[in-house]
Amino acid sequence: MTPQVYEILLVEDDPADAELTVHALRKERLANHIEVARDGAEALDFLFCRGAYSNRSFTNPPRVVLLDLKLPKISGHEVLRAMKEDERTRAIPVVVLTSSNQERDLVECYQLGVNSYIQKPVDLQKFQEVVRHFGMYWLVVNHLPPLAAYSGK
Amino acid sequence: MTPQVYEILLVEDDPADAELTVHALRKERLANHIEVARDGAEALDFLFCRGAYSNRSFTNPPRVVLLDLKLPKISGHEVLRAMKEDERTRAIPVVVLTSSNQERDLVECYQLGVNSYIQKPVDLQKFQEVVRHFGMYWLVVNHLPPLAAYSGK
Repeated sequence: MTPQVYEILLVEDDPADAELTVHALRKERLANHIEVARDGAEALDFLFCRGAYSNRSFTNPPRVVLLDLKLPKISGHEVLRAMKEDERTRAIPVVVLTSSNQERDLVECYQLGVNSYIQKPVDLQKFQEVVRHFGMYWLVVNHLPPLAAYSGK
Repeated sequence: MTPQVYEILLVEDDPADAELTVHALRKERLANHIEVARDGAEALDFLFCRGAYSNRSFTNPPRVVLLDLKLPKISGHEVLRAMKEDERTRAIPVVVLTSSNQERDLVECYQLGVNSYIQKPVDLQKFQEVVRHFGMYWLVVNHLPPLAAYSGK
């Protein structure tokens, strides 16, 4: 059986925000297969193929991770740090999507190697517009790392 | 005198490609101030405020670097490596725009910490479309690192 390919790993603890994001992406037909992780621990289990995701493989990464910062159990910063410190996950593009406009969050994310940082707009229409641009850019325009980039070789 | 703020540092040795990119960005009114560097050495001088650019400051970085890989003097890979190894320039988003579809270029760029990798379309209309998406995403959607991110603190 061919393993499921996920376009996006969405890491978001707020069910309403998660639903809104998935809806906006599906509306634009940009992503059919979106995995939603509700906290940082679940996201790391998915990315590092362990726990409930031990049947997954590092050679089948999501095409992009859309990461909230304020998360239960393990914060978004720690998820980002773990991904960028490990050769097996470093090449997966990580886009932070957060309501935080705190300078220290921005600084820390860029120093940890985030690929891009988007501030979540409060206005619903603007939010959908931003999600559309995110999807177009990372799923259509950006050229993906080949599988070799995930093996650490 | 307020220093000139550059939206984009375009590193491209082919004058026709450089002109095409600048034209596409200006057409969309996405960038007024674009600095063009013709080789990797000139790009590094601009980014590290030395040589002909010694009057520039690290606190006035370009908002994004659009980087070709095959460059005279110093390659795009080496420009990327130098930027991502130095705390003063690490936070500047780097997007590689190249005609190369060689897997080892993609792998190396992602391992070096490139923010995004775009394969240059041969078709003119597709090229303009890609440049438009690049400009919209990095100059409008992406939230910029604050100046503190460039000081390495």
